[in-house]
This record gives sequence, C-alpha cells and structure tokens, in this order.
Amino acid sequence: SATFRASEHQHIRYNPLQDEWVLVSAHRMKRPWQGQVEPPLMKTVPRHDPLNPLCPGATRASGEVNPHYDGTFLFDNDFPALQPDAPDPGPSDHPLFRAEAARGVCKVMCFHPWSDVTLPLMSVPEIRAVIDSWASVTEELGAQYAWVQIFENKGAMMGCSNPHPHCQVWASSFLPDIARREERSQQSYHKQHGEPLLMEYSRQELLRKDRLVLTSEHWLVLVPFWAVWPFQTLLLPRRHVRQLPELTPAERDDLASIMKKLLTKYDNLFETSFPYSMGWHGAPTGSEAGANWDHWQLHAHYYPPLLRSATVRKFMVGYEMLAQAQRDLTPEQAAEKLRALPEVHYCLVQK
Amino acid sequence: SATFRASEHQHIRYNPLQDEWVLVSAHRMKRPWQGQVEPPLMKTVPRHDPLNPLCPGATRASGEVNPHYDGTFLFDNDFPALQPDAPDPGPSDHPLFRAEAARGVCKVMCFHPWSDVTLPLMSVPEIRAVIDSWASVTEELGAQYAWVQIFENKGAMMGCSNPHPHCQVWASSFLPDIARREERSQQSYHKQHGEPLLMEYSRQELLRKDRLVLTSEHWLVLVPFWAVWPFQTLLLPRRHVRQLPELTPAERDDLASIMKKLLTKYDNLFETSFPYSMGWHGAPTGSEAGANWDHWQLHAHYYPPLLRSATVRKFMVGYEMLAQAQRDLTPEQAAEKLRALPEVHYCLVQK
Ligand SMILES: O=P(O)(O)O[C@H]1O[C@H](CO)[C@@H](O)[C@H](O)[C@H]1O
Ligand SMILES: O=P(O)(O)O[C@H]1O[C@H](CO)[C@@H](O)[C@H](O)[C@H]1O
Repeated sequence: SATFRASEHQHIRYNPLQDEWVLVSAHRMKRPWQGQVEPPLMKTVPRHDPLNPLCPGATRASGEVNPHYDGTFLFDNDFPALQPDAPDPGPSDHPLFRAEAARGVCKVMCFHPWSDVTLPLMSVPEIRAVIDSWASVTEELGAQYAWVQIFENKGAMMGCSNPHPHCQVWASSFLPDIARREERSQQSYHKQHGEPLLMEYSRQELLRKDRLVLTSEHWLVLVPFWAVWPFQTLLLPRRHVRQLPELTPAERDDLASIMKKLLTKYDNLFETSFPYSMGWHGAPTGSEAGANWDHWQLHAHYYPPLLRSATVRKFMVGYEMLAQAQRDLTPEQAAEKLRALPEVHYCLVQK
Repeated sequence: SATFRASEHQHIRYNPLQDEWVLVSAHRMKRPWQGQVEPPLMKTVPRHDPLNPLCPGATRASGEVNPHYDGTFLFDNDFPALQPDAPDPGPSDHPLFRAEAARGVCKVMCFHPWSDVTLPLMSVPEIRAVIDSWASVTEELGAQYAWVQIFENKGAMMGCSNPHPHCQVWASSFLPDIARREERSQQSYHKQHGEPLLMEYSRQELLRKDRLVLTSEHWLVLVPFWAVWPFQTLLLPRRHVRQLPELTPAERDDLASIMKKLLTKYDNLFETSFPYSMGWHGAPTGSEAGANWDHWQLHAHYYPPLLRSATVRKFMVGYEMLAQAQRDLTPEQAAEKLRALPEVHYCLVQK
C-alpha cells in the first residue's frame, strides 16, 4: 500500500488550542468550480465622504459628530450587541434551558482618517499607532470586563458594511465560547507539561519550518498545523506575552512591520484587497486580572475565506456545519505559497 | 432596575447538545443594513439540461452516463473529499501535531429527475421516496463506516453549485467533530438523568410551546432555545428513534408531510427559494453499531442564513469566528414568525 503523503492523502488533524478536528483533503483542489463567484470589488473608494459615518467630521447615526481625527479614532458602536446594563435573566428552571446575564460594550476603531487605505497600504508608524490603540483599549475596557475582543472584518465577503479601515472591540462580562475553549486547553497543557502550549508550539514550528510564513526579531507568522481556512495564519510573539498591553515599544514596532508584510502577501496572493476576519486573543481581564494566567500566550488569528482566486471562496457549509471542518489544500502548501509571495504590494509595483 | 425580557435584553444561552454558548442581542434588529446584499436568484432553471451532470441521461465528469432515472438517484461524487483507501499518517511524533487516518466515501443523491423543483414543491410521495433513500444509504454505508452524514446545501449562498435538487452523503471511518460533541453530551446527560437529552428536551418544548413551529402525529419542528442562525430549526421524531432506518412507514409518510410544510414556510418567509444547509444526526454506525446507543435521538438540523430579506443574510464573521455566535432576534420571535406563515407555497397561490 502507498506511503502516506499529506498533499495526496486525506487525513484528519487535531487543533489542541480549540479542541477541534479538521479533515484535510488536498486532492480536492483538482475539482472544477461551477458555484457562486463573489461580486467584484467596489472599484474606487473616495478618500473622504462626508456621508460615511466613519470619516472625520461626519455625523453618526447617534447624531454625534466625529472629530477631525488624524490618527486612530475610537467611538461607541451606535448599534451595540452588548450594552452595559442588561438585567439578569435569573436562575434557570431546567438544566436544558440555561441562560445567563451578558453585559458589555461595543466600540469601533478607525485605523486612519482616509477611507481609501487598508492596513498593508499604511506606513509602519501608522500601523504602530493602531497597535498602541489596541493596547490601550484592552487596558481601558479590561479594567472592567472579563474579555476584550478586538476583531476586524475586512471586505464585503466578511459582512463588512463600510470600506473605511476600521476594526471593532466588543468587551463582555463573560468569557466567550472560544475564549473558554482556549482557556481550558492552555490551562490543561500547562498543568501537564509545565509550559505554555503556544510557546512549545512556536518552538516546534521554528524547528520544523514548513508552516512558517514570516519571522522577525520578536514575532512569527505561520499556517497552523490544524488550519481550517485555506490561508489561515497565526501571529505570535516569540517572548511569553499574555496580553497586548505588555508589548514593549520594540515589539510593537516589529509587530507593525510584520503585519504590513503579512497583509501585503495576502493582497498579492490573488491581487485583490484580501478579505478576512482577524482578532486578538490574550489572557482574560476584568476582576480576574490578578489570577495566574501564565498558561496564556497572546496571539492573533487571521481567517481569510478566499480559496482559488479573488472571487472564488471556500464555503464552510453542509459538511462543515453539520460534521467537521474540511480543507482543500494542506497547511504546508498554503504556507509555501504565502512564503513565495513578494513583500512589496502589487498596487505599488511599477508595471 | 428593569425586569428581564429576552426580546429586549441581551443574554447568553447554552446549547447542551453541542456544548456551546450563543449571545442573543435582539435589540440589534433595529440597526440599519448597509452591507453586502446577495445576488438575485437565477430566474429560470430549465427542467432538463443535458449538460447538467445531475440530470437523467447526462454524462458526468467521470465519463459515466446517468440512467434515465425517474425517482431518486444515488451515485459516487466525482470529486470526493473522502476516499476508501487513504494510507495511515502513522503515529504522531508530538502531542501538538496529531494526525489520524481518514477513510470514507462521498455520494450525491438526486431527489427528482427535474431540475426546476425543490423539496417543498415536490409531492408528499416524492419526498417519502427521498426519505426511503436516506434510510437505505444510511444502512448501506453504515454497515462499513462509523458515521454517515447526509446533508443538503441549498442555494448559491450555501456554496451549492448546481440547482438540481440533491443532497450529499459523506460516510467516514471516524466520528466527525460535531458528532463527537453530540455523543459526549447525550451520553453524559443520559448517565445523569436516565433518559435521552433530546427526549426530555422535546417534552419540555411541547409544554412550553413558544418555540414550536410545527407538530404532527410523529414529529415536531422547533426553533431550539440555543439557535444560532436566525431561523434555525430542529426536526425531531416524538418516539425514541436512534437512526433513520428505524423509522416506520407511518413515521416516514408523516416526515414527508411535515418537511413539506416546514420548507414551504421557509420559502414563504421572504418569498424566495430559501437557502439553507441541513443534515441528519443519528447514533453512530459501522463496527460500533452493536454498542448501546440509547442516549441518541435522531434529529435533523436546518441552518438557513437569511436574516432580513431574500438578499440580506446573517454574517457569521469577526466576533462569531473569534469569540462566540451572536444572534439578532430571539428564538421565540423566529418561531412566532415561522408559525404564522401559511402552509401553502407562495408560488402556488393564485394572485
Ligand atoms: O461538494 P460541493 O457541493 O462541491 O462543495 C460544497 O459543499 C462541501 C461540503 O459541505 C464544502 O466542503 C464545499 O466548500 C462547498 O463548496
Ligand atoms: O457589526 P457589524 O459590522 O455591523 O456586523 C458584522 O459583524 C458582526 C460581528 O462579527 C456580526 O455579528 C454581523 O453579523 C456582521 O454583519
């Protein structure tokens, strides 16, 4: 019988961080695609649109007027999924009908005053300013809330309703589902092996090399062994860092630079403004901030949906929703493709 | 402070079947939508297209020619994610790099010889034939494989690349991720409470009534307390049934009739051919078929993405991918809307 080769032979892989399995069926890339293609991107975004509620000087749905900001700008989401003062649903009357209180705040953070830029097209100091804002909003909201979720939905494909470069921050009184899982996995790994799961994982990936995308003095980017999305990546500090605010100035500068490189590679892959959802995970905050969170390692997940081209995405539907995530190229193949891409943005290359 | 009302006040709910939490923020329905709208549906699908590989008499990618079938038709997927003979990846060399063998088969099942019908537009006896085919493919593949996943991706929005009414069947040598979770939850509930989780859950929902959508002699359809998708439903037999093949002829006829009613309501909701992914879950099969599976109750999940209209869907992105599922109307509101809809298909109403 044949020798196993990951790029030829389907198999399942385990995600020890989120306690989940993925089916890897690399031979599936051979099938033709006749399904839905995504609508082409809006061609030109005006640099400033006084009617866009994210622009400097614009009036928002709440009636508030934005300042003429020239760096990042943080404000309250006018349609928050989490509000500070919801009443408690009270005790559940049955074990199959459990509801609990949820309190929180939702903020929006603009990255830049211009609507026609994206992170990879911003300068390293401009990206550094975004990182500083991420660190301070984590500190500010983390003083009160157990979890501060920073996330960016980029592109219409990811439900993003506004082209202005921005992210969101949802802080909650509870640990969200995926945070709970990562907490459970990292805690039990630390108990068993005496060191943080993601520190050992980084060391292994630096040795094995085939899933690395970028490395720098303080950071690494890799396609995790258990990646689900075609070009999913994990961004990690080399040092043991539990939360964004702990990052030193040198680490922040270096993060800005590696983010610019990663996002440039992403845009270069299909020569399009690459859609994704991304977000930061770090140790819990709030009243539990004093606890021992040494098993946590700060990291960012990037989940981009595109598979074959700027308009053909991976659909996580049927089998994925009912049974198990499934991917069509190996993480090693994805890493190799990303590694090979130039670090200069295709929009900036003289043709 | 205010009294808690689920339709006004955000809260979190627990899914005891899949061990997951959802954030319910019903007040979010008030926000305006400026994001991506879906492309309109293909207007007319020809009843027969000799170039469509799912049609009777057509030639498939493999070169095989379909018979001139006149009921359901089952054949091997020409681009299977699971094949019967993949070699084993061998033992893992590190606890963070775990891979295991995966073997299986992928089949496609056409529901009807015509491309221009969907389940709700088929007759009850025609739907009954689909149910019989589901039961027999479960029996056939279940003889060899541990899990037989029947699922339907309906609509381009759900990655469905062919309008011909059909579903897929992926059988695997392993229990997929979600099956493992449901196995774990149902087993531990049974151990603790001495009866199947979903039997007690059905009884409670029949008493509480506010999440019921349809009931019949042998079946019920409800929006589960922990639903994630806006109009998600759960379809359950009233009797304790572990697997599809166990259904009696009377239960199958009644299932055909309740499916027709549910899918008609779905289409009527936004007067469109309602997209969804759906699938069946029942007790594991294969070499473990002889084990005690009394904690399992057969059920089907329906996961439809539409939220506000035929073209505005719920995006499960950023917060949902990084933190926790979030929904914008309560399950009770969704059930009420579905209950109120007529059981006659809007396409068949004389206007
Ligand atoms: O098998 P199909 O219809 O070609 O493919 C569709 O369903 C599969 C199973 O849910 C998914 O893995 C694919 O991403 C989706 O496009
Ligand atoms: O907050 P937005 O951008 O209006 O909304 C978007 O992101 C949210 C958080 O991931 C999702 O719940 C919404 O479905 C999505 O459309």
